[in-house]
Amino acid sequence: MPVKKIGRSKSTPPRKFARRMAKTQRSFIREILKVTEKPEIISFAGGLPHPRLFPIREISRAAARVLRESGEQALQYSTTEGFPPLREFIAARYRRKDGMAVRPEDILILSGSQQGIDLVSKALLDPGDRILIERPAYLGALQSFALFEPEFLPLPLEADGVNLPALEKALARPRAKIFHTVPNFQNPSGITYSRAKRRRIADLVRPTSAFVVEDDPYRELRFLGEDLPPIRKYLGDRAILFGSFSKIVSPGLRVGWVLASPEVMEQLVIAKQASDLHTNTFSQRIIHRYLLDHDLDDHIRTIRRAYKNQRDVMVAMLERHFPPEAQFTRPEGGMFLWVTLPPGCSVQGVFEAALREKVAFVPGNAFFVDDEGSNSFRLNFSNTSEAKIRTGIRRLARAVKRQLQKSGSKGS
Amino acid sequence: MPVKKIGRSKSTPPRKFARRMAKTQRSFIREILKVTEKPEIISFAGGLPHPRLFPIREISRAAARVLRESGEQALQYSTTEGFPPLREFIAARYRRKDGMAVRPEDILILSGSQQGIDLVSKALLDPGDRILIERPAYLGALQSFALFEPEFLPLPLEADGVNLPALEKALARPRAKIFHTVPNFQNPSGITYSRAKRRRIADLVRPTSAFVVEDDPYRELRFLGEDLPPIRKYLGDRAILFGSFSKIVSPGLRVGWVLASPEVMEQLVIAKQASDLHTNTFSQRIIHRYLLDHDLDDHIRTIRRAYKNQRDVMVAMLERHFPPEAQFTRPEGGMFLWVTLPPGCSVQGVFEAALREKVAFVPGNAFFVDDEGSNSFRLNFSNTSEAKIRTGIRRLARAVKRQLQKSGSKGS
Repeated sequence: MPVKKIGRSKSTPPRKFARRMAKTQRSFIREILKVTEKPEIISFAGGLPHPRLFPIREISRAAARVLRESGEQALQYSTTEGFPPLREFIAARYRRKDGMAVRPEDILILSGSQQGIDLVSKALLDPGDRILIERPAYLGALQSFALFEPEFLPLPLEADGVNLPALEKALARPRAKIFHTVPNFQNPSGITYSRAKRRRIADLVRPTSAFVVEDDPYRELRFLGEDLPPIRKYLGDRAILFGSFSKIVSPGLRVGWVLASPEVMEQLVIAKQASDLHTNTFSQRIIHRYLLDHDLDDHIRTIRRAYKNQRDVMVAMLERHFPPEAQFTRPEGGMFLWVTLPPGCSVQGVFEAALREKVAFVPGNAFFVDDEGSNSFRLNFSNTSEAKIRTGIRRLARAVKRQLQKSGSKGS
Repeated sequence: MPVKKIGRSKSTPPRKFARRMAKTQRSFIREILKVTEKPEIISFAGGLPHPRLFPIREISRAAARVLRESGEQALQYSTTEGFPPLREFIAARYRRKDGMAVRPEDILILSGSQQGIDLVSKALLDPGDRILIERPAYLGALQSFALFEPEFLPLPLEADGVNLPALEKALARPRAKIFHTVPNFQNPSGITYSRAKRRRIADLVRPTSAFVVEDDPYRELRFLGEDLPPIRKYLGDRAILFGSFSKIVSPGLRVGWVLASPEVMEQLVIAKQASDLHTNTFSQRIIHRYLLDHDLDDHIRTIRRAYKNQRDVMVAMLERHFPPEAQFTRPEGGMFLWVTLPPGCSVQGVFEAALREKVAFVPGNAFFVDDEGSNSFRLNFSNTSEAKIRTGIRRLARAVKRQLQKSGSKGS
């Protein structure tokens, strides 16, 4: 007997768009950003670096020099893998910081590290494969993975990283292909994985066939505590590590990278070539020139100082003005902190009240694939001046208190 | 009785990489380019614009001005859709040239028009959907589509465009989703669709549910004959039209675009956001500044003049030195021409002989999904000086004649 053919029969009318599009939505955050763009609103909603910290003059000098010295190369097509000296710069930094044996050929330059999720998905995922995600998770990863029709397994996040028993259990499920994590100053929660947890994650993943996708754009933005090595340091080639110049030089130039084993790299390069041929040649050379002519660590220190001050002001204001029932994380770096209100307090109500007070944030449910997060929200502190943080948190505290009173009176 | 579950059972060992990767290969051309990179080789293999024609000083001035006047915006994250004034520039050009009613919101800026294939595939294709392709086809499209596991239906290409009965028949097949075409100075063949054929294609596609993906990076490089409107002019919203600044300003800046209906655009924007958030902000603003401060048509005339001279020299040399059994196209624009040797003459043999003569090209079979093309090859004339074209074609003619003698003696 012939095997019955799988798929749509001839009589079914054809679907207009691909099945995957039914599972993907426009970013809720981007929709919120449109509402909060008005100048009178103090917005903690976005996830932008502070533009005052962009090295504009330095980039301008680098751009001029690149065009003067190698204009024909800088404006031409280039290799899919990326500009070799820039790959070597990135590799050398890992060698120096983490003692990992990274060669330039282990680095693929990306059009921003967000592209890494698209390429890793192309290389690794078949529909129905399982992705272990953090809960709450980075929204851009959820969106990007969703196009590949996976099943998401959300894992609880604790103050020092993912819950290990939950990770272990999820790794044992069939077709558990990827554990996606933002180990430093996680977006949206602000939490950082402890060294012990990084080690334990490596131990748990090693005997399985899963990959850790280690999404690490914020590592350099640490202003408190000790810099920690990536999970890749403990796990080796089964970790696929993303990095980015977006938070330390400029996001508009769209230059990030992925560090992967030769076997995975082969697949990522094929996927990259098919996706956009190669990353902007000019931007790669500008960033490389900038890195040669300036001390990156010096610039990073300036950013850290600024963000630390902004974070300190936000934490102090939250401590002073928020009701004690509201809890919040105290990140050691990055750009976000996470507020949790008592269960049953609707963040949607806070959001609406806050908009009337002319202050905005991202409601927590945006970062969950299930119905969780309805009593939590994300605050960004990197993109707002200290003065505006003071005013904004005062306004926000009024909105929160009003909503707590409401839900309290409802509950009584 | 329960329906049997489809897919891998628990006992099957998990596939390491995604199923789609088995169907995709590294670009053969990129592999060839590595061989032909040596300076002593005259290469007609690549598909690069001539770097002497890049407006380096103008781009340098534009970059400096963008950073001086709007550095904080130019280096920041920006919208997925792209820089509004650049979208309006592109829309206005279509309105003026083609009388099409294009609004800026109908344009999505891409990281090169190659990305359009990735995004359209994400929006439209489920595995097993059928893509009608030209025969020979643009290799980059084959690669990019292949990641979405379609079935390719190759359609014969004639001197004035695709064979219409073949197109009609293929459109009638179930799940015929996309007809991909490069209507102007096709890569690799150099042929251009006639106005009549563009009209007829619109008539054939209209009653079906397929989309025409009109991949049009070369249109502006016309040095002979009459500029023709895109198929979209006749077909409207069922044509998805790609354009690019790569051939007329700079490919290294990676800025292209797609023109699509609002309904398709909605899906493409979601796919773009998930793929790389947005196109390089700085590059978009540089190109826009360049377009404001200079006459693009003036610059295009310079490119056309140069490529026409190079094409004329190549055609003249082919006429003089190639044996009469070899046929070749005489393109009215673009960057490529296509040589066909008598059936049975192995281009692989010519390729090896040519490399010994220190001249290179791309063998035709790279552009076919079936086993065709073994007696044809592509020559690029845009990236080589007239003097090198003269020397290179002389060398190539020797290799061709030698191979013809061989296959002739074998056949006798």
